[in-house]
Amino acid sequence: MEAQIGSGGANQLLKSLGTFMRKCMFRVLSVGAIPNHIAFILDGNRRFAGKHNLSPEAGYRSGILSLISVLKYCSELGVKYVTIYAFSIDNFKRSPDEVRCVMDLMLEKVKVLLQEESKVKQYGVRVCFLGRLQLLSQPLRNAAEKVMKATANNTRIVIFICVAYTSTNEIIRAIQQSCIDKLDNHSQALKQTTSHDNANEGVEEITMVKLVDIDKHMYMSVAPNPDIVIRTAGGNRLSNFLIWQTTHCMLYSPAALWPEFGLWYLVWAIISFQRFHSYLEKKKKQV
Amino acid sequence: MEAQIGSGGANQLLKSLGTFMRKCMFRVLSVGAIPNHIAFILDGNRRFAGKHNLSPEAGYRSGILSLISVLKYCSELGVKYVTIYAFSIDNFKRSPDEVRCVMDLMLEKVKVLLQEESKVKQYGVRVCFLGRLQLLSQPLRNAAEKVMKATANNTRIVIFICVAYTSTNEIIRAIQQSCIDKLDNHSQALKQTTSHDNANEGVEEITMVKLVDIDKHMYMSVAPNPDIVIRTAGGNRLSNFLIWQTTHCMLYSPAALWPEFGLWYLVWAIISFQRFHSYLEKKKKQV
Repeated sequence: MEAQIGSGGANQLLKSLGTFMRKCMFRVLSVGAIPNHIAFILDGNRRFAGKHNLSPEAGYRSGILSLISVLKYCSELGVKYVTIYAFSIDNFKRSPDEVRCVMDLMLEKVKVLLQEESKVKQYGVRVCFLGRLQLLSQPLRNAAEKVMKATANNTRIVIFICVAYTSTNEIIRAIQQSCIDKLDNHSQALKQTTSHDNANEGVEEITMVKLVDIDKHMYMSVAPNPDIVIRTAGGNRLSNFLIWQTTHCMLYSPAALWPEFGLWYLVWAIISFQRFHSYLEKKKKQV
Repeated sequence: MEAQIGSGGANQLLKSLGTFMRKCMFRVLSVGAIPNHIAFILDGNRRFAGKHNLSPEAGYRSGILSLISVLKYCSELGVKYVTIYAFSIDNFKRSPDEVRCVMDLMLEKVKVLLQEESKVKQYGVRVCFLGRLQLLSQPLRNAAEKVMKATANNTRIVIFICVAYTSTNEIIRAIQQSCIDKLDNHSQALKQTTSHDNANEGVEEITMVKLVDIDKHMYMSVAPNPDIVIRTAGGNRLSNFLIWQTTHCMLYSPAALWPEFGLWYLVWAIISFQRFHSYLEKKKKQV
């Protein structure tokens, strides 16, 4: 019993020491630039499961544990926005069992968020789901909407979770919404003309979709563009994720599988970002 | 005199041996998949000049020598399309001297292409300039248009040279052209209606821009999407280059500056592509 208390106390001490060391390290890191917005492509959960002879579900569960730690570190570092590529529209083409497993897991975790609303509020976490949410099951969609509503006033860190998402789909949606706006303007202009023949005079200018219209209709128009995209499992590609928002953004691709991605990988990513920061700032000024 | 002839002969022999070895290596490489389309971001010319105490112009000239070799190797490998990010719209914000230097160099090389038209035809090279060509000087624009016309019927390898280009600009241009098409359809639909009140019935469907419309109006709609983007000088970002066309494409970033990029770097890039090929093919099938 005494040994148990002793062991528990030692564990607690070690944990506190670890937290203290981490916070000291973050204080040192914060002397340099800290990304305002980090985007993650969570690649390698299934490969992690294969590597350790686990079921795919266990791989995804390990990935969620890793995600929770990484979000905590991001919050401690003062990162304001984190975007996660959780599930692509293309991923719906995976086996029905696997899709169901990911969706069930997501529903389970969203429910936990709802149950722990006061804790989520205490940490100032706002959660936004982005993508074609109509492709999700009704219970998951309802839960996602509840979480978005419940956390809407939290401001310390915003977590964008991209589900049923691809960049191409986001861009096409933004184009279509811009077109609808323009069509309304067009109809207004038509109604104001007395003669049908000169209906098209000046209409082309009104109907022309511009860069600002597309920007306005992107899901993430409320947030600055990401400063760094981190894709685990060594993949040097965006896989149709945030292509519009990352035109000048650094892609960092550690070889670690997502469930293996932890504190040191994140620190190394921040250091790599800081190394490129002055160069990226110069580039941004040129744009 | 005899020694000179001997030295010249030895050089010729070494050159032939080099060519033979290279072609053997390419034959071995071709057992695996060869990319159909390679895109290059030619980064590091200025850094190369700085490293070797050369003028920026000398850096760009070294870069062009490297480009000519790489294009030759691509043609020998059977690559059908090569896209080069030669000059971004953002690059016009560089110093006027540097912009003039790059433009003069480009004009000089385009004129060489025009002078050597028969050789270009013999190698089956088609050259296309993509971007807001109206931003180029009139002599360069005229020369570029002449080259495009002169090489239009060559079919062995197509070289797309992106000048005054950014992806965002290309996408916005495609959206606007799609809108003009839709506006025409809209006007037709309006003319066919007898009553002004039901003018908008079904018009929204006609006016809605879709993915196929955008694809159709992209500069490179005639070519397949790139299989690999190679960016030299270690930069892991696209810098607003072909973002629409590279959603599932591998980004390969050797540390070498562009003028240092030669045969071995290209071979290594192809091997890296081959290693990922089966995975990429699987991904493409999911899309």
